[in-house]
Amino acid sequence: MEEESQEFRFRHSLDIRFRDLDPMGHVHHSIVLIYLEEARARYWQEVAGCPGLADIDYVLAEVTIRYHRRIEFPQRIEILVRTNRVGGKSFVQQFEIRSAAGERLASGRTVQVMYDYEAGGSKEVPDDVRARIERYEAGRA
Amino acid sequence: MEEESQEFRFRHSLDIRFRDLDPMGHVHHSIVLIYLEEARARYWQEVAGCPGLADIDYVLAEVTIRYHRRIEFPQRIEILVRTNRVGGKSFVQQFEIRSAAGERLASGRTVQVMYDYEAGGSKEVPDDVRARIERYEAGRA
Amino acid sequence: MEEESQEFRFRHSLDIRFRDLDPMGHVHHSIVLIYLEEARARYWQEVAGCPGLADIDYVLAEVTIRYHRRIEFPQRIEILVRTNRVGGKSFVQQFEIRSAAGERLASGRTVQVMYDYEAGGSKEVPDDVRARIERYEAGRA
Amino acid sequence: MEEESQEFRFRHSLDIRFRDLDPMGHVHHSIVLIYLEEARARYWQEVAGCPGLADIDYVLAEVTIRYHRRIEFPQRIEILVRTNRVGGKSFVQQFEIRSAAGERLASGRTVQVMYDYEAGGSKEVPDDVRARIERYEAGRA
Repeated sequence: MEEESQEFRFRHSLDIRFRDLDPMGHVHHSIVLIYLEEARARYWQEVAGCPGLADIDYVLAEVTIRYHRRIEFPQRIEILVRTNRVGGKSFVQQFEIRSAAGERLASGRTVQVMYDYEAGGSKEVPDDVRARIERYEAGRA
Repeated sequence: MEEESQEFRFRHSLDIRFRDLDPMGHVHHSIVLIYLEEARARYWQEVAGCPGLADIDYVLAEVTIRYHRRIEFPQRIEILVRTNRVGGKSFVQQFEIRSAAGERLASGRTVQVMYDYEAGGSKEVPDDVRARIERYEAGRA
Repeated sequence: MEEESQEFRFRHSLDIRFRDLDPMGHVHHSIVLIYLEEARARYWQEVAGCPGLADIDYVLAEVTIRYHRRIEFPQRIEILVRTNRVGGKSFVQQFEIRSAAGERLASGRTVQVMYDYEAGGSKEVPDDVRARIERYEAGRA
Repeated sequence: MEEESQEFRFRHSLDIRFRDLDPMGHVHHSIVLIYLEEARARYWQEVAGCPGLADIDYVLAEVTIRYHRRIEFPQRIEILVRTNRVGGKSFVQQFEIRSAAGERLASGRTVQVMYDYEAGGSKEVPDDVRARIERYEAGRA
């Protein structure tokens, strides 16, 4: 996929926990979404400028994960996130998870939809959020 | 997608747990993979004829999930699983998660690769497993 | 302990999930608290008469767990809960987790404190909640 | 309790994850055991001299946790662990979880029993493990 050859500007590191493992001795496949969430929450704070827990006003609409290698414990991994597109009410991100040695462990794509928890429905991406993300991904911030 | 209009023969029900929820008050998006795993493990036992924990000799290679509605607690949900294709070393499944009222909560597709934990690499789908799955999905078992 | 020879009136059953296991092939020790929570939530609904998610207005203050046997998958377990004492702002419960065959897998004791999330501090056990619990545990309801 | 006024030599820090939270907006009470496990695994590696995953040859026999404050996200916490006693087949540890500001968030005590996974039963604490732990806790290593 063409998108995958692009660069990632945003990176977040974290330590795998013992409880992330399953009986097969590797990280359970669902935990990749938790690693990604940690990076996305920091991206939302630092890039989109939405600092608080209550500012996480989007929901996942779609996710695709490709698993490249077993993820083992203990290890410090790196999660790379990039926003490919900001639409009217949603935004699309690409991600990669890499080992400390730089091996690609997992990769994929998520679609997030802005969500109004009070109204119980989708809402527009705020203009300032869109502007901050686009500036950042264009390398201008 | 054409596949989605097909029928699911295999169904598994389970109760949502309080711990499945996140601070937004709905089931965390990663938990869909855990619900699906419960259904897939029963499918592997009952359809593919592989009864034990040590018989779970595949790994997830790719997964796509589409989230249709927020999943709330408490609730008994139904997970529907179908094998679309059995390849040489992998098999592809389609799934849906439905509320007791029949609403579609999440759906998607997974690719599993047969894995030899001792050799540390992929392996062939055993002939008897392939035959059992194909018979079942063709409605002949 | 004398308390342990008493009877449990309240029982809740649930299915262990594959994801509850850890690399040692048994249920991770932290998951006992999640099983217990499922039973306590039902107790709070059915015995204390507090039906909704927003009615879970207590926090854990202390817990002791004793692990008697490894808990294995797949299995349907039973969780037994009893309220030993309702204090001014807290209540003390005893619990046991048993296999389908009746073996004691884990047991222990929890102390819950009523919590006012708006005020950010403890609060009194409501009179009607206390009355319902005491009636139930005395075998009169 | 007298034990609690003692010092902790061993400390491990970690970042809370969003998924550690529950619908009440604080860390779920079961997660304290996962934080503690991370510190105990490092203690076992660094103090007891048992480096690998297969060297975690003990099981939890008993745990008591006291919850002092709600644990909020995001935050880097510190887990302090001390071995109070090494018995014939078991060892007793005390722990505290503290905020970056030094507030006590949770504390407690665990009893671990050495476990032989092949034989399926308890076993002796190896002499070199006992010696390393006792030297470390006496401040001589």
